[in-house]
Amino acid sequence: MYHDITPDDKFIKNEKVPGPTKEEIRTLTISKAQIHEEDVVVDIGCGTGGLTLEFAKRAKKVYSIDMNPEAIETTYENLKKHGLEKKVELIKEEGLKALENIENYTILMIGGSGHNLQNIIETGYLKLPITGKILITSIILETATETVYTLKQLGAKPEVVQLNVSRGTILDRGVMMKALNPITLITAKKL
Amino acid sequence: MYHDITPDDKFIKNEKVPGPTKEEIRTLTISKAQIHEEDVVVDIGCGTGGLTLEFAKRAKKVYSIDMNPEAIETTYENLKKHGLEKKVELIKEEGLKALENIENYTILMIGGSGHNLQNIIETGYLKLPITGKILITSIILETATETVYTLKQLGAKPEVVQLNVSRGTILDRGVMMKALNPITLITAKKL
Amino acid sequence: MYHDITPDDKFIKNEKVPGPTKEEIRTLTISKAQIHEEDVVVDIGCGTGGLTLEFAKRAKKVYSIDMNPEAIETTYENLKKHGLEKKVELIKEEGLKALENIENYTILMIGGSGHNLQNIIETGYLKLPITGKILITSIILETATETVYTLKQLGAKPEVVQLNVSRGTILDRGVMMKALNPITLITAKKL
Amino acid sequence: MYHDITPDDKFIKNEKVPGPTKEEIRTLTISKAQIHEEDVVVDIGCGTGGLTLEFAKRAKKVYSIDMNPEAIETTYENLKKHGLEKKVELIKEEGLKALENIENYTILMIGGSGHNLQNIIETGYLKLPITGKILITSIILETATETVYTLKQLGAKPEVVQLNVSRGTILDRGVMMKALNPITLITAKKL
Repeated sequence: MYHDITPDDKFIKNEKVPGPTKEEIRTLTISKAQIHEEDVVVDIGCGTGGLTLEFAKRAKKVYSIDMNPEAIETTYENLKKHGLEKKVELIKEEGLKALENIENYTILMIGGSGHNLQNIIETGYLKLPITGKILITSIILETATETVYTLKQLGAKPEVVQLNVSRGTILDRGVMMKALNPITLITAKKL
Repeated sequence: MYHDITPDDKFIKNEKVPGPTKEEIRTLTISKAQIHEEDVVVDIGCGTGGLTLEFAKRAKKVYSIDMNPEAIETTYENLKKHGLEKKVELIKEEGLKALENIENYTILMIGGSGHNLQNIIETGYLKLPITGKILITSIILETATETVYTLKQLGAKPEVVQLNVSRGTILDRGVMMKALNPITLITAKKL
Repeated sequence: MYHDITPDDKFIKNEKVPGPTKEEIRTLTISKAQIHEEDVVVDIGCGTGGLTLEFAKRAKKVYSIDMNPEAIETTYENLKKHGLEKKVELIKEEGLKALENIENYTILMIGGSGHNLQNIIETGYLKLPITGKILITSIILETATETVYTLKQLGAKPEVVQLNVSRGTILDRGVMMKALNPITLITAKKL
Repeated sequence: MYHDITPDDKFIKNEKVPGPTKEEIRTLTISKAQIHEEDVVVDIGCGTGGLTLEFAKRAKKVYSIDMNPEAIETTYENLKKHGLEKKVELIKEEGLKALENIENYTILMIGGSGHNLQNIIETGYLKLPITGKILITSIILETATETVYTLKQLGAKPEVVQLNVSRGTILDRGVMMKALNPITLITAKKL
């Protein structure tokens, strides 16, 4: 059972909600997550639901968390549009608090964390099983460095990749390149 | 059946053969190819076999072509190492000529083309079934523009993505970023 | 006499006119031009006047050309704002035609060329004195490859640099990086 | 008096010394420094002397500091080669300590700082006159975030630019792009 990545323009958008995470970033994040059918995913800061949707296609269950009720609503609409709403439990709550009540997940995705990043990583990493994965995407320099620092403190060996993607628009006179904002993707396996 | 992307350091290398295509580029190329189990792939300019290996994991059959006998040998070694050699027919020949003798492929990958790019794209695209895919990766500006031009002439609607990937090395004093060379990925569906 | 680069937000803008060329790109273009006080510059496709202004600060005279009357007007306003309008002759005309009537320039800048790029480069390069410089900025892949091809045909040795610049926005929670569109800068010295 | 940027291949190199800072990065750094003839520059972590040389061409005096005696030697050789050694005082010492003994500088450049970055920035910024400039280049993520944090604590308004530069190699079959490592440039004016 193979799952294609959903194009950006197949998502319902809400201007008060960030996302969806761009196709290329979703592709690389999903690949680094090495999801298998039995995986249970926690997605903190789900926004528009871009990554939640990709996880929902491939994993057993997804918990998607966001403090913004419109993010929860938009994620729900996108899941419904693609017939995946039954695989996902949507939780409108602060990430750390929500995380404390979830057990037995195998993949932890953090796309947004408010001011609690370090605590979320610590709590979330400790609850992961050995070989479980943690993934953080960031458009903020400090999120990247805090994440690496916290993961190193926890004894993990984070991998860091920065992606500068440009997409071409085909015009009569040629291909005009437009840049997407750079994203840093940090991943680690629970050791 | 889910397949992870093979890390760069799991490939046998030969210094006379380019590649393997970097993990992030293989990930995005494979994703854009939307491979399904029944697909038959032609991989022209297979080099070290990085993409051949990813195609072989996911498709029914792969034809891998390279003029360099050492590329054919290295690709074979990498397929063998990962138990995938039976899925792949290796062809040491000029791409265009090899392509003329292959029927019923559904995905055409061009990673290297010598001086025959335009002919290979034309011949290869015309033999694709409707909804078949063509993918070209390029580190050469002219390869990108020639590819787009040729695909437009054929009535296709190419998508162009340029990827600038940097990877972090974790040092005591922090994460040092090192750039991979930029790659342009051009994809089109047979219309 | 040292001249600072004018920040982007010091330019008068017109939404029907592209530009100004971003500060970082103006900086690198001006540096590659190695302008001296006795230089005479032709700037084809002057747009908002970003590069014209930088040339006007440093050279003896600048001819700025654009087919769009609003570009000519906006460039004039920006020169006036910075007290440089006397150094620049503004020409509302097609680039190639304008170029044919200008003699004794030492630097040729092409930021926009309509459909006549190859002819403009050929005509413009041939009229340059030995050690004169030609510079082309491009957001279109084909402009870059055509430029390189044409310059090579003319016996020049073009240098190609591609720039992906991201700028940070300082937020409470950290530095958010935003990408500018990638620019290719091609330069050559008349041999 | 206009000064061109020295090409990378005009520097004497020593494999035990990092640098020279790449031409494009030197260009942008020098531009952001807005050097005038009366400026006095401190360059901490001078390495091969790439930036020292550019400062020496344009400023009244430069203090160049490095703990590595081979860096001091290589910087001296490069200054000598370009006839600029009289403008520069070379100091083989830890950056913070050296800085404490220098008065009346107007530009502070930090290209390397060992483990003392925060102290160097604090001490160095406080000694700058109003409108003096501080510039930091970094290939390490944490250097960028620490720098921004420290400058904000000091009441400065840092500007952050990240540069991904690729250079083309002209081959028969086209222009092959090769990436330089990404650099973050942080600059602030003393308020």
